[in-house]
This record gives sequence, structure tokens and C-alpha cells, in this order.
Amino acid sequence: MLKCKIFSVGKTKEKWLEMAIEEYVKRLQNTLSFEFVWAKDDEQLERLVEKEALSIFCLDVSGKTMDSESFSQYVVDQFQKGGTKLSIVIGGAEGLPPYMKKKYPLISLSPMTLTHQCTRLILVEQIYRAFEIARGSKYHK
Amino acid sequence: MLKCKIFSVGKTKEKWLEMAIEEYVKRLQNTLSFEFVWAKDDEQLERLVEKEALSIFCLDVSGKTMDSESFSQYVVDQFQKGGTKLSIVIGGAEGLPPYMKKKYPLISLSPMTLTHQCTRLILVEQIYRAFEIARGSKYHK
Repeated sequence: MLKCKIFSVGKTKEKWLEMAIEEYVKRLQNTLSFEFVWAKDDEQLERLVEKEALSIFCLDVSGKTMDSESFSQYVVDQFQKGGTKLSIVIGGAEGLPPYMKKKYPLISLSPMTLTHQCTRLILVEQIYRAFEIARGSKYHK
Repeated sequence: MLKCKIFSVGKTKEKWLEMAIEEYVKRLQNTLSFEFVWAKDDEQLERLVEKEALSIFCLDVSGKTMDSESFSQYVVDQFQKGGTKLSIVIGGAEGLPPYMKKKYPLISLSPMTLTHQCTRLILVEQIYRAFEIARGSKYHK
């Protein structure tokens, strides 16, 4: 069973977002479990992420953009590198701390600035899509 | 009052998506009204879109990517060109009909393949963001 931890600053608990994400959490339940970790500020975020395993990347609008096929390959590689564990960091309202932008690889879901909520939803959907692409299903055409 | 029509194929009525979009519809209610138009198939989509005014663009993963600032400028320009009206087309599960891909400008929200639902949410949020950018508010930093 793979484990994916998603770190962010400042807890948001929109009902619609939980409903939207739940669908992908369910579909992935035999492959991967998500853990959502909330830091209260950038300092706590840095401390929490530093304790993590080898495989970490951050989401940032300035990061590398990729299509879903490349992201699928990247996510599969990262899970292997991390020994079934992957940690992903989403910045808070002010973006990622500069220290983390330098230390970890940066991936961008879109050149557009997305809300934290949209970022989280797209991330979870793209991780689900990554596994569907890897197993060659019809989900991704 | 500006009018923005969003055309798509195949009606989806996820509760979470309505909740998520409603927030931006409300915030924009003194500036712009959205109308969501559902076609039953590609042929009906083409007929409906052909009746529209000057300002039309389509969303497609192969389209031009832009950051939120450029998209803001583009949307404002398109509203001016269309005389307060703008029509945007989202393809169905099979993507846009080839005919429409050739006829209209193509804009991409992300190089990643998004679900129809994520596309609709990001589009509405980016249109709200476009107006916040244009008026120089703190929403977009």
C-alpha cells in the first residue's frame, strides 16, 4: 500500500472540497492512502516536512509544468524513490516559504494562479489519473 | 452588466461543483452573469455556438497556456470585442469537435488533462480572478 502525505498551511474544510476529493480517495483505496497534514504556519510546515522520507516535491505556480502523462511517470518514479512513500507540499495563501522553494523540486499544475482548494482537488485527481495512466485504463484518453 | 455563456456537452450536476461555483457566481453578481448552456451532442453544440456573438473561445488542453494576469487581460479584451458578451466552450468527454478546434481560439487552463468538472470550476474562478486583477484588488497577489 502506497502512502501519500499532502502538507499545507492553514486548514480549510470546505464541504464541497471534501465531497469532491472523497471520490478519488475511495477509488484509490486499494492502491494508495492519503494523509492530509495541516501546519499552523511556515515554520511548523518546514519542521514537519524535514522529518519526511526521501521523496518530496512542492507545488508552486513557478514550478515545472507537465502534461498528465509526464506527471504520471514522475509520481510513479517518486513513489519508487521514496520506498512507497511520497510527500507533497502545497503553500499557504502567501505561497511556499523561500527556503522550501530552493530545497525541493517544484511542480506546477498550471501557469495560472489557483486557489488552495482548486490545487488540492486537481492534485488528488491527477494522482488518481497518474495510476490510471500507469495501468493503461480508459479513464485517461 | 456583462454576460458570459459557458457551453458544454453532456450535463453534469455534481452537488459539490454547484456549491463551489455558486460562491464565484455570487461574488460576480454585480459585474457579470453566467449562463450555463448544455448541448446533448457535438452537432447541437456547433449549432448553438454558431448563433453566438463575436467573442468566442474554446478550452482545450492543446490550447495556449497563460498566467492569470494574461488571462485577465484576454478576458477583458474579449468582453470589449463582444460588446459585453463572451461565450466559452468546454468540450465533452471526447474533447472538442475538430471543426471547433480549427474555427475558434483555443485556450488551455493547464497542460494537464483536467476533468470536465475541474475545468468548469477553474474557469469560473479564473474569470472572477480576472476581474479582481483588472480592478487591482488584493484577491490576486
